[in-house]
Amino acid sequence: MSTEDKIISFLQENFVAQNGIGDDAAILPKEKNKFYVISKDLLVEDVHFRCNYCSPQNLAHKTLAVNLSDIAAMGAKAKYVFLGISLAKKNLNYGKAFLRHFVKTCKKNNIFLLGGDTTKSTDKIVLSVTIIGVVEKNNIKKRSGAHAGDIICVAGNLGSAHIGFTALENNFPGLSKYKNIFLRPHAKQQEGIFLGKQKSVTAMMDLSDGLSTDLTRLAIASKKSAIINIDNITISKNFAAACSNLNLDPQKTILSGGEDYSLLFTVQKNNYEKLAANFKRNFGYELQCIGKITEKRKTALLYKKNGVLFYPKLNSFAHFA
Amino acid sequence: MSTEDKIISFLQENFVAQNGIGDDAAILPKEKNKFYVISKDLLVEDVHFRCNYCSPQNLAHKTLAVNLSDIAAMGAKAKYVFLGISLAKKNLNYGKAFLRHFVKTCKKNNIFLLGGDTTKSTDKIVLSVTIIGVVEKNNIKKRSGAHAGDIICVAGNLGSAHIGFTALENNFPGLSKYKNIFLRPHAKQQEGIFLGKQKSVTAMMDLSDGLSTDLTRLAIASKKSAIINIDNITISKNFAAACSNLNLDPQKTILSGGEDYSLLFTVQKNNYEKLAANFKRNFGYELQCIGKITEKRKTALLYKKNGVLFYPKLNSFAHFA
Repeated sequence: MSTEDKIISFLQENFVAQNGIGDDAAILPKEKNKFYVISKDLLVEDVHFRCNYCSPQNLAHKTLAVNLSDIAAMGAKAKYVFLGISLAKKNLNYGKAFLRHFVKTCKKNNIFLLGGDTTKSTDKIVLSVTIIGVVEKNNIKKRSGAHAGDIICVAGNLGSAHIGFTALENNFPGLSKYKNIFLRPHAKQQEGIFLGKQKSVTAMMDLSDGLSTDLTRLAIASKKSAIINIDNITISKNFAAACSNLNLDPQKTILSGGEDYSLLFTVQKNNYEKLAANFKRNFGYELQCIGKITEKRKTALLYKKNGVLFYPKLNSFAHFA
Repeated sequence: MSTEDKIISFLQENFVAQNGIGDDAAILPKEKNKFYVISKDLLVEDVHFRCNYCSPQNLAHKTLAVNLSDIAAMGAKAKYVFLGISLAKKNLNYGKAFLRHFVKTCKKNNIFLLGGDTTKSTDKIVLSVTIIGVVEKNNIKKRSGAHAGDIICVAGNLGSAHIGFTALENNFPGLSKYKNIFLRPHAKQQEGIFLGKQKSVTAMMDLSDGLSTDLTRLAIASKKSAIINIDNITISKNFAAACSNLNLDPQKTILSGGEDYSLLFTVQKNNYEKLAANFKRNFGYELQCIGKITEKRKTALLYKKNGVLFYPKLNSFAHFA
């Protein structure tokens, strides 16, 4: 268990039966049938981003996107944001440019900046975002709703952001497609709202810490186990070549690369075909079907390869480890 | 104008007519006549607190208290909190002790921890709190409601926290009463709710950056000017002696010392006597009447001494400047 998971489980034990702790966002009643979903994120320079290769524009985009993604993962529409920023003198200009672009990015996404806090920092830039979305009660998707037999799906990239991240960290030239996926992730806002409306979708979360780690969390929250069918995962030539350039194992990159901000969700088996076709028609790209949910087993996550089940050793994506 | 005020005014210009930016908390509709008020704070090690003289217990108390204070300043009752924490390996034990005490402090205050975010830090501890309160529409107090003729009041200490802060920073022995006020501020939760219910209270905020700085903000938000009557400010013997020990000017300490987390508010003149008596009966201590609101003048803040008005030079409290 990572330190983060340990702390979250300590908090869960102390605040029983809460909406929120451990989910992508907390849930509070609005009026009638509507709810607010609220999520909070902390981004620390040289832990979550580096100023030397992440421009203020890109950081503004990414800061909002990772939060929009949390709201999308609940099936909700993001509406309001709060920004806390801590700046030292040496990064004041970078910080001001970031703020200008953050305001612009909020406006472009119809998100209202409701408030925040600006403070000095001794050294590193720290960003803290609280985002609020609105959703109808019946459309809320939690991590905890998966049932045995459900199909596990992903909408969006797997591992591409990790290729971009590795290339940027190692100052590797080219691979700009992957660098861009890491620097300017696309929050699946419309997909999240669409999937929120599907009754056949039983659980959902976004992928920030890597497929294996996040799927383990979904399985634990649902009190089930998840099997990833490795044979279902397709590795494109382009992806394999990029991995080879960076000495990355393609399969491992797909299974544990973080920061893709794709949506991970489970669907009732009988409704999967229809949903997948519907999704393709709406968004122009295919869902990836990566495995299925089973009753609880010895571990929350299993892999299946050539028809054989085994228990993986997990390495969580840990930013700049 | 401080960098913080400049950034806030930049944000205000870009998000017109918002509840929130510049106030203690933002306001969002709940159901019927009720509203959520939401506030966000960032606390950075060695900017807002130092681990060498602030125990994890005290930090947990203070982190919650400064946020409870923001909610009280809106006339609201605090209900929910989100905590973001960024920890480096070297301060993991301090951080874990902080978390234990933070959970305890939330429970003691009937505040539910709804979620949060834990991340690594490269060096300093960073805490980010989002707090949510609930209030009836008619009881919401903003900074912007003051009218010419209103009396300016303070509930709580003025300058005492700054004495404690200065003593701690200079490793000065004794003065534990003042050190305690700085380390374990008392959020005026009950006072805030009481004042929220008083129709005669026209504007309210909490005092975090010092009386002069914060009153200037209230006056600007209300499009008025504020006059502090210096002759009204009483300096106790004990206070003067503590200041003398630390080479602090008592009057300046009262006018610009930060982190008191007292409530600053304005009251309709005709209702002041009744409110003050009522307040004394409820809370066992006197309100301080420190001046009055006037129509807008050349500057937002004026001082009056021996009947003569003058424009002060302001030095905002700037934590560990």
